[in-house]
Amino acid sequence: MSHKVVIVGGGFAGLYAAQSLRREPVEVTLIDRRNFHLFQPLLYQVATGGLSPGEIASPLRFVLNRQKNARVLLGEVVDIDIQSREVILADLSRLPYDTLIVATGATHHYFGHPEWAAHAPGLKTVEDATEIRTRILLAFERAEKTTDHAERAALLTFVVVGGGPTGVELAGALGEISRDTLRADFRSINPAEARIFLLEGADRLLQTYPEDLSLSAERSLIELGVRTRVGAKVTAIDGGGVTMITKGGEDHIAARTVLWAAGVQASPLGKILAERTGVGLDAAGRVGVDGWLAVPGHPQILVVGDLARVVQDGAQVPGVAPAAMQQGRYAARLMAERLRGQTSGQTRGQTIPAFRYRDKGSLATIGRNRAVAMIGRFRFTGYIAWLLWLFIHLLYIVEFESRVMIAIQWGFAYFTFNRGARLITGDSGRTRV
Amino acid sequence: MSHKVVIVGGGFAGLYAAQSLRREPVEVTLIDRRNFHLFQPLLYQVATGGLSPGEIASPLRFVLNRQKNARVLLGEVVDIDIQSREVILADLSRLPYDTLIVATGATHHYFGHPEWAAHAPGLKTVEDATEIRTRILLAFERAEKTTDHAERAALLTFVVVGGGPTGVELAGALGEISRDTLRADFRSINPAEARIFLLEGADRLLQTYPEDLSLSAERSLIELGVRTRVGAKVTAIDGGGVTMITKGGEDHIAARTVLWAAGVQASPLGKILAERTGVGLDAAGRVGVDGWLAVPGHPQILVVGDLARVVQDGAQVPGVAPAAMQQGRYAARLMAERLRGQTSGQTRGQTIPAFRYRDKGSLATIGRNRAVAMIGRFRFTGYIAWLLWLFIHLLYIVEFESRVMIAIQWGFAYFTFNRGARLITGDSGRTRV
Repeated sequence: MSHKVVIVGGGFAGLYAAQSLRREPVEVTLIDRRNFHLFQPLLYQVATGGLSPGEIASPLRFVLNRQKNARVLLGEVVDIDIQSREVILADLSRLPYDTLIVATGATHHYFGHPEWAAHAPGLKTVEDATEIRTRILLAFERAEKTTDHAERAALLTFVVVGGGPTGVELAGALGEISRDTLRADFRSINPAEARIFLLEGADRLLQTYPEDLSLSAERSLIELGVRTRVGAKVTAIDGGGVTMITKGGEDHIAARTVLWAAGVQASPLGKILAERTGVGLDAAGRVGVDGWLAVPGHPQILVVGDLARVVQDGAQVPGVAPAAMQQGRYAARLMAERLRGQTSGQTRGQTIPAFRYRDKGSLATIGRNRAVAMIGRFRFTGYIAWLLWLFIHLLYIVEFESRVMIAIQWGFAYFTFNRGARLITGDSGRTRV
Repeated sequence: MSHKVVIVGGGFAGLYAAQSLRREPVEVTLIDRRNFHLFQPLLYQVATGGLSPGEIASPLRFVLNRQKNARVLLGEVVDIDIQSREVILADLSRLPYDTLIVATGATHHYFGHPEWAAHAPGLKTVEDATEIRTRILLAFERAEKTTDHAERAALLTFVVVGGGPTGVELAGALGEISRDTLRADFRSINPAEARIFLLEGADRLLQTYPEDLSLSAERSLIELGVRTRVGAKVTAIDGGGVTMITKGGEDHIAARTVLWAAGVQASPLGKILAERTGVGLDAAGRVGVDGWLAVPGHPQILVVGDLARVVQDGAQVPGVAPAAMQQGRYAARLMAERLRGQTSGQTRGQTIPAFRYRDKGSLATIGRNRAVAMIGRFRFTGYIAWLLWLFIHLLYIVEFESRVMIAIQWGFAYFTFNRGARLITGDSGRTRV
């Protein structure tokens, strides 16, 4: 009987772990609630009408269909039986594992204000993205129709909460939409009059980047017409807009569209792992794994990706795609070495050095020809950084077909300023305007 | 004050009318509930995971943004005030018109069985298409998981009701999905064992086509593994499957996925027009216009596209895209001639010959390399018909960008047998499997 590996989650960490096991004598089962791998770094482009969901999503079955030792299961893991070494699915079926790799990631989190969710959608799923797209486009449509000046101003005000890469990219895309994409589309309003606010609680945007890149990103955003507010702590979000505390005191922005790009919270499977194994969780719900990404005392359970709390040189390894990929690959390598150790009669144990995240750099795009990048020790801004961003993102797209499609869409968008996927769809899109 | 034209509906008829008025001294307002024009003939490809919604939808504002005399209004027309010549929107705002062009099309219709809708979704909107896509893909996923033989068989049984072009194309695509696309994707089931039924009440498929093409289409479907049943009258559809009466008596197919491609019913705006003007409706709710596409006694109200009942040489002009385009263009030309007649002091009246539909042909694709086509007097089947189908569909796509994207997707699909947009999304996609 070959060794059974169950991987929960088909994001970067889980998928890379599965693929890295392709030549090993194991039986891999990849379980996900969704039938596709989502290229999260480009999700903001779906939310802003630049790409279609199908272009950044790859069916997991297709990605793994030639990998003979892998199968895909659509399902939701609701519990883990540590004693019998089984995962329990929502339909109460059980799946035995010899090694369990948990890679269920994180979702957005409203800092103890779940009531904000209805007014400020976050950006984690395809449905989130199409909902945000619908809200942005409907705001312009409603502004075109209204005759009430205050209402029109609130409809043309967009607030992005959170100045990390997602917030910066969303705000930049909103700047482009209002200034370029929609320029000639309306008759009563001038979309370029839209006000876009980017709020960040800390004292600068892109906190994990060097300070000069933060400043460069802020400058680019301001050139695009985005109003950045650092040191702004949001205290309330409702249908009327956002209330915050800044250095100058309390402030309120009347806005009909608020987008959430701030807190994240680890997947609830972390809590279940903690209850079953006693492993510690940090404040964001991440699982405190050992240096080999295993749950302490349970070497057969590995946690990778955004769900893992990995501290290196005193800092948490960031929840970014490259870290998830590296952890997924590491987990596969660790397993392979353990199996080889067992068959050659060695004692079981940590056979390879502890995981180390290799930070190859960070990139964030702000808009056409504008980005900031850090590759190794080198820093880039403007056009060069933007080209690097394009190139690296295309490189990591899983399917060749998607890569071609996205490259072509970007080419068209660059020359026509259009965003072809700007559809108002779904339940919100069918409400009467 | 220039002449005010209000066009209700941004489908082929409404959009072509608006565009054909671009050089006329009129003010065009195009009203639609959706913010995009949908290329309906390819909607079945979205439903079967071949294309993304964004690729067959073009934002109406983008399509018309360079047309100075046109504006787009997102809204739903709920009534028409014939006396004051105004349309009334859902928000109770009113919009005056000098000429009104009604082009709100048709929706699907369950022959007095609205309860079938939940079990047999039709294919008219983007949301319909993604819902059908989700149902088809979830059926395979559930079949992979179940251990109950009867349940697995029902999950792998797909019934398409209605043997017109949409039904034929859906059934053909399902044949390809089960035999080619998903071939290597599952481990417990063999997708090629899926049974696909195509039910038609009349005595042959594609009734509006010549008989030899109907037979050719049926042969191609059978080669793809589709089981065609002509002369089958559906009497019940529920969660368990479809009951029908055939020549051999009553029959039941146990199926978890039933798709509706049978009856259509004209948009409810037809009924409102009838109440306000006394115009007659046919059984399908279509408005009985005169030879100039006008409501009798109301020359300033034109009805075009699937909502219009136009009889020519004793037969109803079919509800197909080319007929809608021709009627839209005709309405614009009629209006332009009337305006010229007025300004040159002629008496108002029908200044151009009555509308005549020019049937340039019909095409339906069954699958890879398989189609039937009738172009003028010429009939084609197989590969040639399939190439014609590809070429003509690409030609009529409104946006150049979409044309390129679709061509590339088709190219990939042809060589890889993949369907990249096969995502399980939406509320149904988030239910636990």
